Amino acid sequence: MNDVIAAIATPAGEGALGIVRLSGPDVLAVAARFVRAPWQPRLATLALVHDEGRPVERAVGVYFPGPDSYTGDDVLELTAHGSPYLLSRILELAVRSGARLASPGEFTHRAYLNGRLDLAQAEAVSLLIRARTETTARAAFEQLEGRLSNAVEDLRRRITGGLAIVEASLDHPEEDLPAFGPETAAAAASRLAEEARRLAATHRRGRLAADGARVSIVGRPNAGKSSLLNALVGRDRAIVADEPGTTRDTLEETADLRGVRAVLVDTAGLRDEAEAGAVEREGIRRTRASLAASDVALVVLDRSVDFQEPDRSLLEEAAAGGRPVIVALNKADLPRASGLDGIEGVQVSALTGDGVSRLAERLADELARTGAAPEGEPWVVSLRHRLALEESAAALDRAAAVAGEAELAAVHLREALAKLGEIVGDTATEEVLRELFSRFCVGK
Amino acid sequence: MNDVIAAIATPAGEGALGIVRLSGPDVLAVAARFVRAPWQPRLATLALVHDEGRPVERAVGVYFPGPDSYTGDDVLELTAHGSPYLLSRILELAVRSGARLASPGEFTHRAYLNGRLDLAQAEAVSLLIRARTETTARAAFEQLEGRLSNAVEDLRRRITGGLAIVEASLDHPEEDLPAFGPETAAAAASRLAEEARRLAATHRRGRLAADGARVSIVGRPNAGKSSLLNALVGRDRAIVADEPGTTRDTLEETADLRGVRAVLVDTAGLRDEAEAGAVEREGIRRTRASLAASDVALVVLDRSVDFQEPDRSLLEEAAAGGRPVIVALNKADLPRASGLDGIEGVQVSALTGDGVSRLAERLADELARTGAAPEGEPWVVSLRHRLALEESAAALDRAAAVAGEAELAAVHLREALAKLGEIVGDTATEEVLRELFSRFCVGK
Repeated sequence: MNDVIAAIATPAGEGALGIVRLSGPDVLAVAARFVRAPWQPRLATLALVHDEGRPVERAVGVYFPGPDSYTGDDVLELTAHGSPYLLSRILELAVRSGARLASPGEFTHRAYLNGRLDLAQAEAVSLLIRARTETTARAAFEQLEGRLSNAVEDLRRRITGGLAIVEASLDHPEEDLPAFGPETAAAAASRLAEEARRLAATHRRGRLAADGARVSIVGRPNAGKSSLLNALVGRDRAIVADEPGTTRDTLEETADLRGVRAVLVDTAGLRDEAEAGAVEREGIRRTRASLAASDVALVVLDRSVDFQEPDRSLLEEAAAGGRPVIVALNKADLPRASGLDGIEGVQVSALTGDGVSRLAERLADELARTGAAPEGEPWVVSLRHRLALEESAAALDRAAAVAGEAELAAVHLREALAKLGEIVGDTATEEVLRELFSRFCVGK
Repeated sequence: MNDVIAAIATPAGEGALGIVRLSGPDVLAVAARFVRAPWQPRLATLALVHDEGRPVERAVGVYFPGPDSYTGDDVLELTAHGSPYLLSRILELAVRSGARLASPGEFTHRAYLNGRLDLAQAEAVSLLIRARTETTARAAFEQLEGRLSNAVEDLRRRITGGLAIVEASLDHPEEDLPAFGPETAAAAASRLAEEARRLAATHRRGRLAADGARVSIVGRPNAGKSSLLNALVGRDRAIVADEPGTTRDTLEETADLRGVRAVLVDTAGLRDEAEAGAVEREGIRRTRASLAASDVALVVLDRSVDFQEPDRSLLEEAAAGGRPVIVALNKADLPRASGLDGIEGVQVSALTGDGVSRLAERLADELARTGAAPEGEPWVVSLRHRLALEESAAALDRAAAVAGEAELAAVHLREALAKLGEIVGDTATEEVLRELFSRFCVGK
């Protein structure tokens, strides 16, 4: 924590500008060896970068004295021309002057250790950088602003309050404490458990926002699944051929459907495995696995072919576990066959493009229902947070169950607190921290 | 010139930080519609980026009031999280607030129009961003600092001085002017022409620094040219096979040889065209074209095969026009054949790697001789500058030739001045400006 770390903070590649960032208690002492500038706090200053006196670049530097900086330590940011060569040269000069190459996420890790961000906020930084849609960006920004942390802190405060009363009754059984029967205590603990569980349940939305909804495109061979994937993403992603069974591997393509990221998965056609060869059978196995992991199923029916028993079982399989199903009635350019009357679906022709935008809208509606950000409420994006909330809720349930036995209840309440503490980081282990920050990019 | 331009100034891709840059007289008025911050000149300030009041990001902004800014106009730089999505969202908000998307190089173009940089300096910005080696970066930095501009301005000042005397003698033939015979005048003009020509001649080095030296690897079929290319660049770039004539297209690969960028060109083996098929003949034609365009020839001889007449003519062809030739005596792992006694070359085995680093050193020495930056002297990187200097020198020669006829001499001196003015931009045409700045990246 006492050394100076340095990294290129902007993306790799050529650009107009690039930033080299340094942080550490001695940052100005290190900088004095390769940059000349009359630093003043937060004032953008023209600085001469030199290699033992030989000019290398004129950068604009800003010195952010700690603790009011990103990391909480003294920070120096040098904005230079966006030349990859030049930026690595400046970084090299920083290292020769006593700085050390920062590891991934080390700036944010220091910010966390210095109390500038709690752990949930630190995780939001990485989420924000990887954001691909408005929904993810907003979720990450709100988490960074502390919305989730505040909700967790609120829960912790109230559990701590309850724990204080329980502990007081243990320490001073002789005193006249406020009326606090086991039923009241149990109800309070159950209410808190319910709140924690409700927050944990927002993870479904959070995960969709962060990773995108998985939409499996399933159907019988030759229904036009690959053509439909291509039509939806607007380019030739999947190989299309008249031959049934052309698609064997599952192909993935992402699309932004009105702010929600969707991963569209093209799959091998499903048919009686007894009739399929070994390669096709493996394809069918993968299709089933993809379907099981998807949030929405897009079932493609060939409406020019009579609706049959395999179609019905396909629809049932797609809807298993309450999964939302959207039906595309493909080949609307061909005459309609029979047996489709009861089927509600979007008429579409992947060939002519007719109905494709209607189908995309229908998908976007479905995703908006399940994947859009709730307005003004905290929500959970990370699985780690969901699990901690669920474990905290379970501990609160256990506390409620033993509300009459103060000593036991206190143990469970402390466990509930510890689990919540893991979210903001107070009780996170070294391994958790290392794992989290290693997923960051260098320079952050 | 009166509108506000905006662009993402950092490279595309994910990173810790990214910058959106705005410039124009009304920059703060535009910014007020989507960023909230108490701007103070040059003070890095935490700013809330919002979409009609809805928070989007907290950026660190710096406001640089003109004329003391990069462009000379008011500039605002917003440093946000390096998320491509977020940065384009901020750019979109800037555009919705009244800014316009900047065209490539438009910030630097404005800096030029506002007199913050002359044209040679503006060109150096683009050169610096594309720099790949220390030599190029230094050449670009020195040009940006004004070393070439100063040399050109010095020439212009002295020509203007001479022109003033010539014009005075025309305007006031009756006055007693200092003794200034035609011989003295002619000698002065010739001296200036010589200086302009000397500066133009530095372009050879400048071009090598900017584009890299072209090194053609030539030799008879199966001498091991492709193996040697692979050994020099340290990876399997070219397909290697026992079959003579494996290489048909010329393959290029760049290498950094002690600060000088080299483009190594693997070529088809040269042999009697009468014996070669059509494809091979085309390959041989390309080899010859590559050799003609190269700065250094690396001739590969198979030292396990007797030296023969075709080898001698190959060496002669490689050295045509005084081109430096380096000979690699390849297959040092096999017994040495005869006839090679007079040939000075580097013993090397592309197969075992023996001698490869010695050969690279030898190449680096040769390139350092011709391609390294001269210490403390101005030099020309751009062909445009070289041509302008040569044309200026030619006009000065013409002036020297007619030194006795003041009116004619004045015409040529004015032309010499105009040509030099094109370098720094005073007399550059709109087309030249447009062409130059269009080669910049957006955001610069």
